[in-house]
Amino acid sequence: MTARREKAAVEANTGAAEPRRLGIGLIGGGFIGRAHAIALRSLPLQAFPPAALPELRVVAEATPELAGQAARRLDIPDATGRWEEVVERDDVDVVAVATPNSMHRDVVLAAVEHGKHVMCEKPLGVDAKEALGMYRAAEAAGVRHYVAFNYRRVPAVTFARQLITEGRIGAVHAFRGKYLYGGNTDPSVPLGWRHRRSEAGGALGDVGSHVVDLARFLVGEISEVTSATRTWTPRRPLSPGSTEYGDVGTDDEGAMLLGFRNGALGVVQASTCAPGRYNNLSFEINGELGSVEFDFERMNELRVYLSDDPRQLQGFHTVRVAGAHPYGPFFYPENDGFGVAFTETKVIEWHEFLGALVHGEPVQPDFYDGYVANCIIDRATSHQSGWVPIEEEPREASR
Amino acid sequence: MTARREKAAVEANTGAAEPRRLGIGLIGGGFIGRAHAIALRSLPLQAFPPAALPELRVVAEATPELAGQAARRLDIPDATGRWEEVVERDDVDVVAVATPNSMHRDVVLAAVEHGKHVMCEKPLGVDAKEALGMYRAAEAAGVRHYVAFNYRRVPAVTFARQLITEGRIGAVHAFRGKYLYGGNTDPSVPLGWRHRRSEAGGALGDVGSHVVDLARFLVGEISEVTSATRTWTPRRPLSPGSTEYGDVGTDDEGAMLLGFRNGALGVVQASTCAPGRYNNLSFEINGELGSVEFDFERMNELRVYLSDDPRQLQGFHTVRVAGAHPYGPFFYPENDGFGVAFTETKVIEWHEFLGALVHGEPVQPDFYDGYVANCIIDRATSHQSGWVPIEEEPREASR
Amino acid sequence: MTARREKAAVEANTGAAEPRRLGIGLIGGGFIGRAHAIALRSLPLQAFPPAALPELRVVAEATPELAGQAARRLDIPDATGRWEEVVERDDVDVVAVATPNSMHRDVVLAAVEHGKHVMCEKPLGVDAKEALGMYRAAEAAGVRHYVAFNYRRVPAVTFARQLITEGRIGAVHAFRGKYLYGGNTDPSVPLGWRHRRSEAGGALGDVGSHVVDLARFLVGEISEVTSATRTWTPRRPLSPGSTEYGDVGTDDEGAMLLGFRNGALGVVQASTCAPGRYNNLSFEINGELGSVEFDFERMNELRVYLSDDPRQLQGFHTVRVAGAHPYGPFFYPENDGFGVAFTETKVIEWHEFLGALVHGEPVQPDFYDGYVANCIIDRATSHQSGWVPIEEEPREASR
Amino acid sequence: MTARREKAAVEANTGAAEPRRLGIGLIGGGFIGRAHAIALRSLPLQAFPPAALPELRVVAEATPELAGQAARRLDIPDATGRWEEVVERDDVDVVAVATPNSMHRDVVLAAVEHGKHVMCEKPLGVDAKEALGMYRAAEAAGVRHYVAFNYRRVPAVTFARQLITEGRIGAVHAFRGKYLYGGNTDPSVPLGWRHRRSEAGGALGDVGSHVVDLARFLVGEISEVTSATRTWTPRRPLSPGSTEYGDVGTDDEGAMLLGFRNGALGVVQASTCAPGRYNNLSFEINGELGSVEFDFERMNELRVYLSDDPRQLQGFHTVRVAGAHPYGPFFYPENDGFGVAFTETKVIEWHEFLGALVHGEPVQPDFYDGYVANCIIDRATSHQSGWVPIEEEPREASR
Repeated sequence: MTARREKAAVEANTGAAEPRRLGIGLIGGGFIGRAHAIALRSLPLQAFPPAALPELRVVAEATPELAGQAARRLDIPDATGRWEEVVERDDVDVVAVATPNSMHRDVVLAAVEHGKHVMCEKPLGVDAKEALGMYRAAEAAGVRHYVAFNYRRVPAVTFARQLITEGRIGAVHAFRGKYLYGGNTDPSVPLGWRHRRSEAGGALGDVGSHVVDLARFLVGEISEVTSATRTWTPRRPLSPGSTEYGDVGTDDEGAMLLGFRNGALGVVQASTCAPGRYNNLSFEINGELGSVEFDFERMNELRVYLSDDPRQLQGFHTVRVAGAHPYGPFFYPENDGFGVAFTETKVIEWHEFLGALVHGEPVQPDFYDGYVANCIIDRATSHQSGWVPIEEEPREASR
Repeated sequence: MTARREKAAVEANTGAAEPRRLGIGLIGGGFIGRAHAIALRSLPLQAFPPAALPELRVVAEATPELAGQAARRLDIPDATGRWEEVVERDDVDVVAVATPNSMHRDVVLAAVEHGKHVMCEKPLGVDAKEALGMYRAAEAAGVRHYVAFNYRRVPAVTFARQLITEGRIGAVHAFRGKYLYGGNTDPSVPLGWRHRRSEAGGALGDVGSHVVDLARFLVGEISEVTSATRTWTPRRPLSPGSTEYGDVGTDDEGAMLLGFRNGALGVVQASTCAPGRYNNLSFEINGELGSVEFDFERMNELRVYLSDDPRQLQGFHTVRVAGAHPYGPFFYPENDGFGVAFTETKVIEWHEFLGALVHGEPVQPDFYDGYVANCIIDRATSHQSGWVPIEEEPREASR
Repeated sequence: MTARREKAAVEANTGAAEPRRLGIGLIGGGFIGRAHAIALRSLPLQAFPPAALPELRVVAEATPELAGQAARRLDIPDATGRWEEVVERDDVDVVAVATPNSMHRDVVLAAVEHGKHVMCEKPLGVDAKEALGMYRAAEAAGVRHYVAFNYRRVPAVTFARQLITEGRIGAVHAFRGKYLYGGNTDPSVPLGWRHRRSEAGGALGDVGSHVVDLARFLVGEISEVTSATRTWTPRRPLSPGSTEYGDVGTDDEGAMLLGFRNGALGVVQASTCAPGRYNNLSFEINGELGSVEFDFERMNELRVYLSDDPRQLQGFHTVRVAGAHPYGPFFYPENDGFGVAFTETKVIEWHEFLGALVHGEPVQPDFYDGYVANCIIDRATSHQSGWVPIEEEPREASR
Repeated sequence: MTARREKAAVEANTGAAEPRRLGIGLIGGGFIGRAHAIALRSLPLQAFPPAALPELRVVAEATPELAGQAARRLDIPDATGRWEEVVERDDVDVVAVATPNSMHRDVVLAAVEHGKHVMCEKPLGVDAKEALGMYRAAEAAGVRHYVAFNYRRVPAVTFARQLITEGRIGAVHAFRGKYLYGGNTDPSVPLGWRHRRSEAGGALGDVGSHVVDLARFLVGEISEVTSATRTWTPRRPLSPGSTEYGDVGTDDEGAMLLGFRNGALGVVQASTCAPGRYNNLSFEINGELGSVEFDFERMNELRVYLSDDPRQLQGFHTVRVAGAHPYGPFFYPENDGFGVAFTETKVIEWHEFLGALVHGEPVQPDFYDGYVANCIIDRATSHQSGWVPIEEEPREASR
């Protein structure tokens, strides 16, 4: 969002304006679909007038029954068991795609064919080829497109980018990113989409793609990669408690070294088997003049080190990201300590997309960003040829 | 909420039920009124079926113009410049009181007279006498009443209470609570309600009352108090930038020692002039078998120390309060790292109140709790006779 | 230490100088006596030339056998079962008093009578009357005296004082200090000196006295106090596992409100029964322009908040106290991350005392500071009349 | 140290034993030589009787003048400008090698030829070939040898290893290690040994070697590596402020992916250009049943997560490593909060080495461990062939 527009929005927040209404069709009423619904519902009530009033008009699920339940639960007027109906409706301006990853392509291609703008969950495609096709189709159709890499929209992350862009930490030298959680550690967790490459599962492909997107957002384009992966549990029960097992086709854990075009060095770690980590999306960035550090588990804080602080006072500033920072005036400008959580990242995401759509301004991350993330993950998970063996002499027998 | 009811609610979350609809009338469309509106709007979409579907039907503000703006901003169908209309409406079942503190009494008394259930912001009264009258009137009218000490509803705080109630830290010895923020530090901040005793301002009276409520919630009833206060800026401009000044009638900073009926010792600190603190509501509780520690600025964590951990592993557990904890299944049970923020405390508050109302179950904090908090603050701010002078001999001249 | 002298010392650190040798006599070879011995032994090897080379010449213990063991363990040439011999020896210039608290007076009075300079452990006296006598005797004898409130000498604490003295946080408004540990929580811990008032035990009197000293060091003189104490375990076994019990005569837990002469408000909490705390000497100080925060459990860090930081960058700086800070050049100036621990506070303490002695400069904390701490603790533990009862109306029966 | 021997030592701590005296010759009186001297001086005074009483008898420096200064500063009786004299002296049992890295080989080979036991600073050799020669020579001579990877001896690190060895976190899956500091960030820092490959400089080679050693200590042998490095400042002034510049021959920053023989995946990051980091040697280890986390900047803490904690209490335990942990009884067993710092790691290192020497027990890290670290660093800094290019399609022109 441009500073100009943000300022205007906040100043104009008298409730007097009558913003345009946009119909939203939600495809997928599960966990992340619900997050979108909550965000769309509370967006107009935040402390800034939205560029447009989003109205959830229909939800699609796998069956009419599931769709009906989702509609009731999410307070949406219409429901359908056929997602095609959503993209065909005249009263739907924007389609929100919250389906399993492997369905993204078909839904997105149909939506853009019908001239709908699209908010699509990440990863955009199951591979770069799919994603490139979606990007090109959306561009050809002239619709607006957005890929839901919502962690760019954590206020502290956007603030980190602001500091980097302003040159406060100088040229970036190192990006150290991680996304760790532990939900997959237990071998009795059954096979699911996260264990299938065809559904864009895996540690690097799923959570790792968020880190790759932040690396690009914060540091710049990536020119080369080397990586390593591990699968700790090669076979898992087909369902909870089942004695039938299937093969796991993805990594439980992966790491990448990244070379950025601007010369910076990156390290990305992703794991779904890290006990004690819940949503540990974190990064440290070192530049020639300072450093920034972030951890989603304390998402309202950005730690900033500036070498030009007076010598005795140098130390990471633990900045409470709030009213004075990006998106700060939108939530509770009266109290800098109230904080935001995951939901607010989805609120901001919609705020950015709808604002760009109404005002005809550019917006990112779009499908191109989704495509590039797919490119990098494809390379990282398919090429791992860089190992050099360690061949030390043995310890002497006497010891 | 009873465990039985919570379990039933989560299990029943199929979207098939058709819960009762309750009309809500909001009086006061400012900062905290907006928080209630957002909470009421997103409550039905959380991962549990609400006991009732709240519907915001009318908002009152000081003038018809302000009311109209609030209605548009908060997406509420009706607006009025006379709050009396809200309490008189047949389609209003529950009145939410988000007015300046000094108006609480009149609004509440009128609401209960009309048989409305009432959610009232804290502090309930400007003093204990007022609060007692409100409590007795609500009881006499047979309506349900709730005072918005929302910090009880931080999941980590409710979990702390669970641990204490279960005896996990044994008998409580010490309660060390604080609520510090820095918004009042700058002497150019103009006079406002926070600087007037008649509007329940002051550090102890405003933010301190939250700590007192948590002390009672977590440790038990308080039998005695001693206290001290300071006013750092005795006169403030009447408005921003004004050269006219008025007297500050309240404390900028206060501290209390508390004696609990069960013998525990409490220390409460409150400040509106603590640079670097934003919403630092925090406490440490030491018991005979362990300790718990909480800080709202990291509200998704509870730190727990248990003396019965194996000797080498003793240390505060930094528990990420989420799916396995109170209210955990309500938000994003799929991801323990997504967290909650201030808004969710208001969601839970309404969830508790509406659930109790529909099911005829008891609920706290109610007006009685509001009254007791007022009692303690009254005593703490009016009696400060406990000082003993220090009269040391002077240092020898030679040094 | 003056900046001038410190600079000279560091510059002169070529090893060429031949500093004066001072004979030290240690009375008490237990835990804290050993700490003094280690400090005296390593002081000359630090990265600065000491003003004097201390030489431990004799140690006294309760019996000749214990003294001999201590001498061997601490590598001290002579040993004696009569402490009087130490204060009489011609080759002893400075007496280090590390006896039980109740012996401090007799040892100190004898030492100063023989013209010895004295380093005495805290608390100086078991009460203010004793301490005043010791202070006056030392002054009358013209010897140098130092009371081992070693936490003033934590580099981060000295740095905090520097910032306050320089006005970096403006006038001090609030001092919030604590010293919590858990070693006394278990009721089977047997009776010891910490449980006897005549030996200056108790939470306020023992660990609390350190906080009071820091309050004076950092904020200024104290003019009034109110307090409350608790004894959780009124009777304890006479020895480990014993079935014979004796009365505990001291507090396990205490809290004080302090009024400073400069108007600041202080809160001091002390506990020997805080599970999970080990040596949690910590404080937060709020001033009109900023705040500082310290916790001995992370003693190499000072957290500093400055209101004049740019708005977006405001946040506590976690300063690694090292080479650029007080005493920083003394330890490992080559690496700011190596840190110091408890031992180094005793090294600095001796460095300060011996430097002042050799150069004839003033030094603090001296016996006067010890006396004032005793005054405040005396008042806090003997007068607790400030309580105001809370007498709320009961909850209505219907609930 | 074996548990049996440790127990015996502590029990026997009566001061009555008369341990064997061992002569130590120190070669190199700079920064790290001084650390050894302080450690040797305070070792006998710790709360356990040393297996042997070390006596520093001679120090060698580059010239007789420097040696004399070092001797006075470090309180060592003899000094020499020829290191060869140290290894030839009959009263020297153990040679401590604290010279520039490039001298290690010559000094060590001479020392073992004269039958001296050797404590050598890290890295053992400037490359694996050198180190292998030193190892084989020491073994052939039958002397004891130790390489000063002192971070193994941080009590929290030794405790981490104990937990892993006991199986408390199950099979190790991931090792995430870092050693970051910022001392080299400023381009005006002049050329020094850290910038010359022939002196074992560079981020990976210098600080990175500590992480590699901990990886082996904590997880096991390493079978393969891939890596990437960067040099941010390719030319530096020859001396402070000089206008003459020389080429930097080493990396300022490096990262490695490690494959362990047991299947675990490792990531190692090393930087000398990380603003805000001082001695940030840190690691996180994830196993199938738990995790451990350590940061030298808070070296008295180990964070431990155990999946078998009760569900609601799961969370990292912040364990204060002290009396109940490895080496805990050695320092201040009376107070678990007093902590240790860098110096104590050198005390423990000597304690381990002298104990093994006197008792004829094995000890690690020895020269073999030094050699293996050299092997891995050699490979990591010389082979970097694993990169895969990212070749994404360009963004469409329209955007």
